[in-house]
Amino acid sequence: MRNIIIDCDPGHDDIIAILVALAHKDELNILGFTTVAGNQTLDKVTNNLLKVETYLGIDIPVYKGYNSPIVKELDVQPLAHGESGLDGPVLPEAINSAKDMHAIEFMKKTLLEAKDKVTFVCIGPLTNMGLFLKTYPELREKIDQIVIMGGGIYNGNVLIKAEFNIYHDPEAAKIVFDSGVKVVMAGLEVCYSGSILLTETERAKDGGKASKLFYDLMKFYQGYAIRNGWDRTAIFDATPVIYLLYPELFKSEEKEVYIETVGEYCRGMTVVDTRNRATEMKNPKTVLISTDREKFVEVIFDALNKLDAQY
Amino acid sequence: MRNIIIDCDPGHDDIIAILVALAHKDELNILGFTTVAGNQTLDKVTNNLLKVETYLGIDIPVYKGYNSPIVKELDVQPLAHGESGLDGPVLPEAINSAKDMHAIEFMKKTLLEAKDKVTFVCIGPLTNMGLFLKTYPELREKIDQIVIMGGGIYNGNVLIKAEFNIYHDPEAAKIVFDSGVKVVMAGLEVCYSGSILLTETERAKDGGKASKLFYDLMKFYQGYAIRNGWDRTAIFDATPVIYLLYPELFKSEEKEVYIETVGEYCRGMTVVDTRNRATEMKNPKTVLISTDREKFVEVIFDALNKLDAQY
Amino acid sequence: MRNIIIDCDPGHDDIIAILVALAHKDELNILGFTTVAGNQTLDKVTNNLLKVETYLGIDIPVYKGYNSPIVKELDVQPLAHGESGLDGPVLPEAINSAKDMHAIEFMKKTLLEAKDKVTFVCIGPLTNMGLFLKTYPELREKIDQIVIMGGGIYNGNVLIKAEFNIYHDPEAAKIVFDSGVKVVMAGLEVCYSGSILLTETERAKDGGKASKLFYDLMKFYQGYAIRNGWDRTAIFDATPVIYLLYPELFKSEEKEVYIETVGEYCRGMTVVDTRNRATEMKNPKTVLISTDREKFVEVIFDALNKLDAQY
Amino acid sequence: MRNIIIDCDPGHDDIIAILVALAHKDELNILGFTTVAGNQTLDKVTNNLLKVETYLGIDIPVYKGYNSPIVKELDVQPLAHGESGLDGPVLPEAINSAKDMHAIEFMKKTLLEAKDKVTFVCIGPLTNMGLFLKTYPELREKIDQIVIMGGGIYNGNVLIKAEFNIYHDPEAAKIVFDSGVKVVMAGLEVCYSGSILLTETERAKDGGKASKLFYDLMKFYQGYAIRNGWDRTAIFDATPVIYLLYPELFKSEEKEVYIETVGEYCRGMTVVDTRNRATEMKNPKTVLISTDREKFVEVIFDALNKLDAQY
Repeated sequence: MRNIIIDCDPGHDDIIAILVALAHKDELNILGFTTVAGNQTLDKVTNNLLKVETYLGIDIPVYKGYNSPIVKELDVQPLAHGESGLDGPVLPEAINSAKDMHAIEFMKKTLLEAKDKVTFVCIGPLTNMGLFLKTYPELREKIDQIVIMGGGIYNGNVLIKAEFNIYHDPEAAKIVFDSGVKVVMAGLEVCYSGSILLTETERAKDGGKASKLFYDLMKFYQGYAIRNGWDRTAIFDATPVIYLLYPELFKSEEKEVYIETVGEYCRGMTVVDTRNRATEMKNPKTVLISTDREKFVEVIFDALNKLDAQY
Repeated sequence: MRNIIIDCDPGHDDIIAILVALAHKDELNILGFTTVAGNQTLDKVTNNLLKVETYLGIDIPVYKGYNSPIVKELDVQPLAHGESGLDGPVLPEAINSAKDMHAIEFMKKTLLEAKDKVTFVCIGPLTNMGLFLKTYPELREKIDQIVIMGGGIYNGNVLIKAEFNIYHDPEAAKIVFDSGVKVVMAGLEVCYSGSILLTETERAKDGGKASKLFYDLMKFYQGYAIRNGWDRTAIFDATPVIYLLYPELFKSEEKEVYIETVGEYCRGMTVVDTRNRATEMKNPKTVLISTDREKFVEVIFDALNKLDAQY
Repeated sequence: MRNIIIDCDPGHDDIIAILVALAHKDELNILGFTTVAGNQTLDKVTNNLLKVETYLGIDIPVYKGYNSPIVKELDVQPLAHGESGLDGPVLPEAINSAKDMHAIEFMKKTLLEAKDKVTFVCIGPLTNMGLFLKTYPELREKIDQIVIMGGGIYNGNVLIKAEFNIYHDPEAAKIVFDSGVKVVMAGLEVCYSGSILLTETERAKDGGKASKLFYDLMKFYQGYAIRNGWDRTAIFDATPVIYLLYPELFKSEEKEVYIETVGEYCRGMTVVDTRNRATEMKNPKTVLISTDREKFVEVIFDALNKLDAQY
Repeated sequence: MRNIIIDCDPGHDDIIAILVALAHKDELNILGFTTVAGNQTLDKVTNNLLKVETYLGIDIPVYKGYNSPIVKELDVQPLAHGESGLDGPVLPEAINSAKDMHAIEFMKKTLLEAKDKVTFVCIGPLTNMGLFLKTYPELREKIDQIVIMGGGIYNGNVLIKAEFNIYHDPEAAKIVFDSGVKVVMAGLEVCYSGSILLTETERAKDGGKASKLFYDLMKFYQGYAIRNGWDRTAIFDATPVIYLLYPELFKSEEKEVYIETVGEYCRGMTVVDTRNRATEMKNPKTVLISTDREKFVEVIFDALNKLDAQY
């Protein structure tokens, strides 16, 4: 049983990642959610999460974090996620509110009280995680690992070489990657390799409550792929969760990774040292390279089935 | 009666600033000290402050903050303040410890509980103040003003155009200056204009406990001036405290001030818009320009006399 | 008799500077004009100069230089100088063309052939001058001095701390200022101090050919001052020429000056070290500080009178 | 018959590239050499080339270019090429001197006089090529293509993501890559793929004049590989020449490539857009990917044999 905190900016793929986690209660114990500005403003992404909790009838505590990156201006992604940050599904108004405690206070309290080490699943910009480590560096030793959706080995999406989550707050990412804590990086390549086919989405069409949410999310979220003529779409944020559950589905390598914080094409690049070097690596990260697409997709549908039976 | 938090990195001039504040208990109510890495490491500057408290027999709570700037590497100033950060006086080991609460938690708690607005006296790098405002932006309205020793209108000291406190953490300074909170800036010029003559220091030679501390601090701290052939030395960090007590001693102007965070000569520059512009200022700061040197120095000796009588 | 090359981007004040130079044939021998993109595109500013030559019936050779800054994108100034770069006067089409030789080739040929050292009057961005020095560093010793309109001691105009000519090509300016050649800097302050009153302009209203050109130039060029409610306007580019003719009208100081090439507020700043420093200056520039406004203006009208009698 | 100008900073691999070109007089007509600071200072690399000309008894004109990058400081590579820039072989003093004409003047003259388009082989930092294009943009149309040894698709050598030639003058490289002229990029990957085995070098041991020069060059140049425990070494600069002669030995792709000019890890990176994008490429480069190692090496030995028979 692994204790995790999910740091997120929901976001369609964030919610799908959360659904997969919720379906694995015996493996993953979600201690709480922390939210951060990214796909949309802090208020919007927090509200999206609370509405999903109300829809599912669950009550895992939610803690709001930072409403903007450390140095950069806020730069949300309405093209991918709509004006609400979660366009598509019709959800009830949220019953609960976020807790009256800042995300980094919750992280601190949790780590201080934890008997065992805690795992962080970071699927938004790293502002919360970075400033937590900056504020409470002595608590690093209570962290088992930080599994991140962000960056890329070879490519970016916002810039040629920069992926959105890292690009959005490269200074925070630099703190996390240089912290010495064990980092697992799920970059664009492994996420693309696990893409779901547009045709596969249809399997959820007539399912229960969780399947319906998934289906409605995907109908909006797939729009970008459809407009580009692609036959599949990556559910980026699900990757860290599925990696924690089924690491055997993934190829990975240990590599040094640094964060470039400036540049016209490289601001926010995860600089993966892909050279073959004789010298020993100082602070390697586990870089996920690829996954078994069909099994990856099957994990998602299995999760939906479990949840449909439950809610 | 003004409630203040002193955010500092002692440091010789920090301690003299604190002595002046301690001597004005009817005007300034020190709610607590927060410490930050700057003149020396966080542990050293915190310990320096605790030892001074023990020496004076006082017990104002001390809260440790950040041990490094947000983005830059730590870059301490042993040339000015020695290896300990407070070389010169022989002080007893500290009886008390810093409180088990982070500087920004103390700031938060204090503002939440305060009936009246609180004034911050920031005389080190602005890492604590900047990340407090980043983390709890909604508490800005509980801040009366932030009086800063830092920057310069025309000149720098670390770089041609950058002063140490701002240069040490320009990203934090940018957060503070852009926050919308009222800022008073005591830059190099006003501090130089209040310099104490080497000969004046001798007045403290045979004084009491506070005078002795002051005298021992100055004998080390003046070394830099003596090595440069100057006849006086600025007690930079005392300026914000004396300004709060005796604003009538100061000339000031309202000016727009921005923080430059990059540059070979200007990284950490307080960019004061000294142009005469017809357009209305968006977010002006109170920029202190000069003081009445003799009265400024007299405030310090009066304070020492009061403290000598007391301790 | 001083041999000069005028490197310019006409531009209203460029033409007035040239008029003043033309009126002093016994003191200044104009070997040629070189043009550079700045106030407007290279083709426009070159054509403006050739049209003025045709209007005045003169034939000093004109050499085109660079059509864009070394690193930055071209960024012309239609607000100050109009779409043509010389809006206002009605001028005849140019009879002559620019010579079929690049500006830096002309500079090279001239210096190689010169018995005596040559003075450069640079009143546009420093792209030509910078890349000439980069390409032919061995010819530095044939340069007497480079008198520049550019920068500022305290203030900028494009940015808070950056003046247009330096801002437009800071990398070129850095080459010039770091080259070791004697540099005289006429920055914004000295130029402002020599401003002509709007009422004084009227003295040229019913003059001859040169006065009429001056008057028509000023009627457009003063528009910016009038729109801002000012009673005077600076004829920036005339300052280096008048300085060469009447240095006794100017206050100046020797100061170290560096060029900042990056920054949100300081990119293109002339970083003048205004601190009082005991250490010897490594490579000081002559920084003009102020002029005698009435005498400065009188030089201009005297020049117009001489030219009116001549053309 | 292809007319070429070789722009170089010899440098061991530069000389081997030149040997291969010299051996193909029916295919490549070397109009001249231009030299640039890079592997060593301008004077040293020029002298190295002139000494090799004297050794071989040839007299192709040599033109000196820039002695430092446009913006950066000079940063030579004694570790790879020794203090002379061509340590190893014992060469006679040079009989000839460099011509009394700057590299960019020679480029201009050549293009103006050329009936057919000219190909540039650039195997040093791109300072000469960049400032030529900046100074004479109208001559771009007389350039057939620019074949560059520089950059990398995935990796760097000076920085994790930056190769020496581009890193040494990224601003110049940016001018070249953005110029619109056809560019072929031989980056680190294709160069590594053509590496010569240490054992193969021995084939030249008892050869003639050219083989002896090659052998002595390699004995020094291979030292870096031997110290690292590798069994082969890349002769980087030979790649563009061999590509022009035998393009069928190379795999390549058309890709957009941009130059990053800032960054801790990416300053001087050739940002190759390796993403699969539906959108049309604006200004693609021919990016060499790999070569047939054995045939590549055979080209070198064939060239040496031809030259041995000749000199």
